[in-house]
Amino acid sequence: MIGEIIAIGDELTSGRIANTTSAFAARRLFLAGHEIYAMHTIGDTPGLIGEALKRAIKRVDFVIVTGGLGSTTDDLTTEAVSRALDRPAILNKTLLEKIRSHLQGTGSDRTGLEKLAWLPEGAEVLTVDERMAGYMLVHNATPIFFLPGIPSQATKLLVDYVLPIISSWLENSGHHVRMRLYKTVGLPEYEINKRLDSLEQHELVRLGYYPVDSEVHISLTVSGPDDKRADVLFASTDKSIRKALGNYIYGTDQATLPSVVGQLLKKENLNLCVAESCTGGLISSLITREPGCSGWFAGGVTAYSNQLKEILVNVEHKLLSRHGAVSGPVARAMAQRLAERVNSRVAISVTGIAGPGGGTDEKPVGTVYIGLYINGEVKDTRYLFSGSRKEIQAITAQTALDSVRLALLKKKLKIPGLSLHE
Amino acid sequence: MIGEIIAIGDELTSGRIANTTSAFAARRLFLAGHEIYAMHTIGDTPGLIGEALKRAIKRVDFVIVTGGLGSTTDDLTTEAVSRALDRPAILNKTLLEKIRSHLQGTGSDRTGLEKLAWLPEGAEVLTVDERMAGYMLVHNATPIFFLPGIPSQATKLLVDYVLPIISSWLENSGHHVRMRLYKTVGLPEYEINKRLDSLEQHELVRLGYYPVDSEVHISLTVSGPDDKRADVLFASTDKSIRKALGNYIYGTDQATLPSVVGQLLKKENLNLCVAESCTGGLISSLITREPGCSGWFAGGVTAYSNQLKEILVNVEHKLLSRHGAVSGPVARAMAQRLAERVNSRVAISVTGIAGPGGGTDEKPVGTVYIGLYINGEVKDTRYLFSGSRKEIQAITAQTALDSVRLALLKKKLKIPGLSLHE
Repeated sequence: MIGEIIAIGDELTSGRIANTTSAFAARRLFLAGHEIYAMHTIGDTPGLIGEALKRAIKRVDFVIVTGGLGSTTDDLTTEAVSRALDRPAILNKTLLEKIRSHLQGTGSDRTGLEKLAWLPEGAEVLTVDERMAGYMLVHNATPIFFLPGIPSQATKLLVDYVLPIISSWLENSGHHVRMRLYKTVGLPEYEINKRLDSLEQHELVRLGYYPVDSEVHISLTVSGPDDKRADVLFASTDKSIRKALGNYIYGTDQATLPSVVGQLLKKENLNLCVAESCTGGLISSLITREPGCSGWFAGGVTAYSNQLKEILVNVEHKLLSRHGAVSGPVARAMAQRLAERVNSRVAISVTGIAGPGGGTDEKPVGTVYIGLYINGEVKDTRYLFSGSRKEIQAITAQTALDSVRLALLKKKLKIPGLSLHE
Repeated sequence: MIGEIIAIGDELTSGRIANTTSAFAARRLFLAGHEIYAMHTIGDTPGLIGEALKRAIKRVDFVIVTGGLGSTTDDLTTEAVSRALDRPAILNKTLLEKIRSHLQGTGSDRTGLEKLAWLPEGAEVLTVDERMAGYMLVHNATPIFFLPGIPSQATKLLVDYVLPIISSWLENSGHHVRMRLYKTVGLPEYEINKRLDSLEQHELVRLGYYPVDSEVHISLTVSGPDDKRADVLFASTDKSIRKALGNYIYGTDQATLPSVVGQLLKKENLNLCVAESCTGGLISSLITREPGCSGWFAGGVTAYSNQLKEILVNVEHKLLSRHGAVSGPVARAMAQRLAERVNSRVAISVTGIAGPGGGTDEKPVGTVYIGLYINGEVKDTRYLFSGSRKEIQAITAQTALDSVRLALLKKKLKIPGLSLHE
């Protein structure tokens, strides 16, 4: 099905707030097999709202409108809809009761809120369970969904109510859809594209490629004329994707790289520690975003100065002066010494030049050594990354986390090398 | 002046790439005193491109179009413009020479690139100095700017060429504009609003409020009928804003909180270290995003487990068992012990419960102790933050950095308290 999205709000047209909701909706709709004809962002201007809506209704299968549903004087969406579609506002008694009991509960007297109970004739409330505005209206056989402007509310209503409704129409028209998001690390987008090219030839299979920082996410959408055939095609395509990409896939759907590393560590009852130089705490920070990471993460050291590498990580002074801080021997020592010191069986370390200054001919900006210590064995690998300081730090952190994942996927925790993609 | 922005690309309508350029352009134009009537995002469809363009030309003073200017077959903007505005494509010889000499330099044979030398009749190239497509066309007295879809190229051409052209029109029509962005931390938006309310009454003064994570940025745009009067009004308004917000302003324009903390430390020849528990390396990570931070940042410890607090930071075991890890005495010990250990004269520490689990009645999720050590003196402050795990970590990191800034702003580096806003 083909849709159009209209976002309303002066805070959007002034660039004060970035319109993340429209892109989120477009992406979710695309993944579910739909198409977006156009997205518009307009200010709180009734004439413009009505004009955009009337034009959209004529040319697409459904319309999503976000914003302008609040209780203040500059929220004009419902008024604009009433006028443009010639549907007078009708008092919705269920909504009014809900609002009154809410006001009673808080003891406040915001009569303006009662404005929210007036909806254009024919509108149906999306849900009375949530404390959010949002309704649907079918005009000239075209469904229009009205959602609040607050991104967290809009995306929740979209995911919980709007997408299932639109998908059920697709289902009823004979399209049974299955979806999965594959998350990969270590392989460039064009290479993934090449490996999956033949799968795209199938007309019921749809692949989307999404570079997310230095990861590439691949969406698979399969549709079939009935449930069974959709399931069979989905399973065989899933198998082909996993065969083509192997361990480059670290997880699916909601998985994150740190959470996958955590699961592998927990399964083996292992504890990780991190010694960082050029990433400056970023690896630890990514890990500790995960709730429950205390079960597998001991902590780390940001040994930014050489002095701290000696004091906190016990790296020998002579090692630093002989090889320099950015070197394989120092990377190995950082991982091994910290692991021994804090009694962890797994440790990663990074030392490198994130730039923009500090590069030399021998070790240009982007040179990074990653050390990996597992169960008494230690290894280092040299990388040359490119990009801004922030980009080099980000890809270094990701590569370090991924080297733990790949090592743990090998049996018996031996480390024959970090390049385990063969 | 009033403008309209049209972004073109299937990668945008599928939600594959977020359209950051339109919001960036809207914001910069708003700050420069202009208004955006509407923003559209459409796919690579010539009919739709032409339709959107023709409608925009009729109702606004200028139009900005981004995307679809590349050399591949799905780049259809120029073709759509030629057709919609009845302006046949004309070969631009300067561009052709530039493209040919570039192709010669690389030894490649991409004849498709020569397509970029064909522009709609009347189009003027924005610059021949950069390796970027981009042109301007005045149709029915309305200027239209065409920019590439790649965000970094579009924003560069916008800032370096488009905005100065539009501003010069405003200047010629008697508006002389001055701008500044104030960055604040620690004061909610409504309170800032209240303090600056009276300034907004002046019709030549324009204020914009931008919440950025837990900071609030305030844009000031002043216009005057000539340079001198614009300067005078700008200086007096700047003075009023600084008086109203005081030390809540940590910097202006390009400044970041860590960079301001770094400047203050460098001025006093001091070195900072950080002991983190619930922020898990985030403070170190924010600091080390700044190039040159090695001049004032020694490093830090992510002491996520109690064991690490003991081993790496020398926090006494009895302190941890008597008060618990999330406590004022432990926060103070973390800051002081780490500072002594790594020989820093300034240290900050955080210990808290970022959630979602781990909260108790006495210490609910969001409870955070921040320790601050300066020159032998140490102090702790208890906070109760709210939000998701990530949000609590972010505001904790920011509050910790800000407490260093506020302490350093006090003379002679005594620390009478962290609440220095009086």
